Amino acid sequence: MKHFYSYSLSVFLVSALLYSPTGTAQEKTTYLTAAESDPVKLGWMVGSPPPPDRILHFEDGSFFEFPALRWSVAHMRQFMPTVNVSRGLGNAIPLSVDLRTDIDALKYVPLGEKKAITWEEGLQKNYTDGILILHHGTVVYERYFGALTPDGQHAAMSVTKSFTGTLGIVLAEEGLIDPSKLVADYLPELKNSAFGDATVRQVMDMTTALQFSEDYADPNAEIWKFSAAGNPLPKPKDYQDPKSYYEYLPTVKKSGKHGTAFGYKTVNSDVLGWIIARVTGKTVPTLLSEKIWQKIGTEQDGYYSVDATGTPFAGGGYNLGLHDMARFGQLILNNGVVSGEQIIPKSAIADIRKGGDQKAFKKANYKLLKGWSYRDMWWITNNEHGAFCARGVHGQVIYIDPKADMVIVRFASHPVAANGANDPYSLPAYHAVAKFLRATK
Amino acid sequence: MKHFYSYSLSVFLVSALLYSPTGTAQEKTTYLTAAESDPVKLGWMVGSPPPPDRILHFEDGSFFEFPALRWSVAHMRQFMPTVNVSRGLGNAIPLSVDLRTDIDALKYVPLGEKKAITWEEGLQKNYTDGILILHHGTVVYERYFGALTPDGQHAAMSVTKSFTGTLGIVLAEEGLIDPSKLVADYLPELKNSAFGDATVRQVMDMTTALQFSEDYADPNAEIWKFSAAGNPLPKPKDYQDPKSYYEYLPTVKKSGKHGTAFGYKTVNSDVLGWIIARVTGKTVPTLLSEKIWQKIGTEQDGYYSVDATGTPFAGGGYNLGLHDMARFGQLILNNGVVSGEQIIPKSAIADIRKGGDQKAFKKANYKLLKGWSYRDMWWITNNEHGAFCARGVHGQVIYIDPKADMVIVRFASHPVAANGANDPYSLPAYHAVAKFLRATK
Repeated sequence: MKHFYSYSLSVFLVSALLYSPTGTAQEKTTYLTAAESDPVKLGWMVGSPPPPDRILHFEDGSFFEFPALRWSVAHMRQFMPTVNVSRGLGNAIPLSVDLRTDIDALKYVPLGEKKAITWEEGLQKNYTDGILILHHGTVVYERYFGALTPDGQHAAMSVTKSFTGTLGIVLAEEGLIDPSKLVADYLPELKNSAFGDATVRQVMDMTTALQFSEDYADPNAEIWKFSAAGNPLPKPKDYQDPKSYYEYLPTVKKSGKHGTAFGYKTVNSDVLGWIIARVTGKTVPTLLSEKIWQKIGTEQDGYYSVDATGTPFAGGGYNLGLHDMARFGQLILNNGVVSGEQIIPKSAIADIRKGGDQKAFKKANYKLLKGWSYRDMWWITNNEHGAFCARGVHGQVIYIDPKADMVIVRFASHPVAANGANDPYSLPAYHAVAKFLRATK
Repeated sequence: MKHFYSYSLSVFLVSALLYSPTGTAQEKTTYLTAAESDPVKLGWMVGSPPPPDRILHFEDGSFFEFPALRWSVAHMRQFMPTVNVSRGLGNAIPLSVDLRTDIDALKYVPLGEKKAITWEEGLQKNYTDGILILHHGTVVYERYFGALTPDGQHAAMSVTKSFTGTLGIVLAEEGLIDPSKLVADYLPELKNSAFGDATVRQVMDMTTALQFSEDYADPNAEIWKFSAAGNPLPKPKDYQDPKSYYEYLPTVKKSGKHGTAFGYKTVNSDVLGWIIARVTGKTVPTLLSEKIWQKIGTEQDGYYSVDATGTPFAGGGYNLGLHDMARFGQLILNNGVVSGEQIIPKSAIADIRKGGDQKAFKKANYKLLKGWSYRDMWWITNNEHGAFCARGVHGQVIYIDPKADMVIVRFASHPVAANGANDPYSLPAYHAVAKFLRATK
């Protein structure tokens, strides 16, 4: 399997993406700590030239092996072709800042443990690269570690899906997409695939029934062909499989009945991205730039990885700055309003916040996400604060807590992809700081 | 030669880079006009997916064949790995704008012709993608064509060399580089190459004597191995040649005596980039960001293409916005001052402006560049206005006219790489508008 073309960003991002429902095996491995694996200390790609054992490559996957991945998540464009998400040429809308010094000492008990740890200790447990908290729209906490800087950009991994989902529901509220229609109504190319008789809504909420295994131990798992299809590197001459996302998606087969169970499969996001491109005539990055990035006062462009035909990876290819991810989170928390202006329809945010089918979600059997649901490619906690979030492997998150009027954005480079590995230190920390902020200010 | 690994950005950029001294043959070919080859009209990479005959690839060189190159020059990052040149997070310094309507009708006689054409006609002759004129620091003219937009970024091609040269002379004035020292004093790796006994000054002024052919008809020309070395795509397993810029440069052989004749060879710029990286411990893009890009009020990040080890292409890999290229030109015209602050040493600009060895330049026999010289990787016209410029293939330019207090920046996508093809319509146009502006305001 170790041909250069069978590796791809997609493998690493999509992987899990695969949120390990059983979530056990991987945690037993011992990894370097956050301090030991500090990518700046390890000196990846530094030097003229860098030492041979510090040079990372895309084609052999070395760039995304831990601990090197800690450097690569902040330098994805250096390994692959990308497209820009322009912020336009105007000035940013400054974030107000009033930093608190009482958050680091905040204590919480990690899931499955008995002893409390501090918020600051949790940052290391989670291999945090950057974290920022907005409370009442003001930055109250901001820290950077690893290879990330305030003016750097970090892979959002599957947080990308929530950008795609937000654009999808915005277009639906604007009348360009009818979620009750069949996917094939928009994409005749998918008529004979699993998606053909699925509704757009089922795609948006990932209740499609797909034969799509993300089991890397299985050389016949569908994930391998999907990844190879999305790999931007040249294909060998005798390569017979799909050569792009749009060539791959029509090959996805149905397994079961749509609309009954939540099944977290990245290909749904890429189908939604395709529908968005078809109805608007614009790529997801272009639309994101026009509808959101240029309008919420961002301070940096973002970028997407692309396949060999220029199609952006709508399921996991977005890279952006921490401040700007906070601005996007605040847009959602503010029901689509920035500086008094309604940027995206309030009804779109309402649709996200009302959540998805909890019964369908339950069937996916996430041990740590009891009572959650999934809507418009956002994760809905249904906790006492009505929190909801965008989640990406290795610990990326946009966590929105309406009751506490709080947004947490975090980039991370946890050695384990599946969020099941960092959730025990993340989810209770988010809720603890939300309760703390709500109580103290 | 048509292996994917023997193609590379470098081939296309370095090529000529090769400013054809004799400059004849190519012009005889008939090309689509600017209007006929409009990349927006031709629809490259548009659609979900784009039509098969509108999909461009890096590995087979199709992305850089005319007329497709007209689209690609504004989308280079979509074909290759890149690194960012951060503008920082502050606000841009706005360019003052006072557009004139009397420039389009300005007439001039192209070199070698008898009949005058208008400035506006010349824009089409030169396949202009974007052009902007600053007079007394104010934008008096700005136009966009082809695939370029004000918030887009365009390949600067060999204009990149002037960025490298500027950083080099800045470091020299700051005392970090001694131009009179030998290259091998800084880069022991080059001791046994042609560069070993060349001075840094000879590298900066390209009076090194190198055995380095850019003759594409010759399969043994050095340019092929240089290009293959810089190609970021994975090398085949049995690949024995240099795999990066830094592996290639030590293999360059000497031919003749250093310091006697100007020889425009891209490898000089990459050697200077290497010296810069060695003495500062920073890459050229990082240093450019810190010393210039973050300090002159730019409104967009720029980016460099890189080889497989992350080394930026200091000889031709920079991409940037038109406004920001104008800001850089104005910095140079203003002797290093922006908003009253000395950003880079005045003495560095003075060193550029004093020009290089005209006798050495003459030996290169440029028919259209009589009396010019080359200094710090800038082209010095020695005309009556003391104009000097940065030049890149297919028509990229920063043209600085001190006497007229004028900067012209232009991005273009001329079908012929060598500037000899567009100079007849460019050089007299620049001088005509300089005289016009000087006289009228």
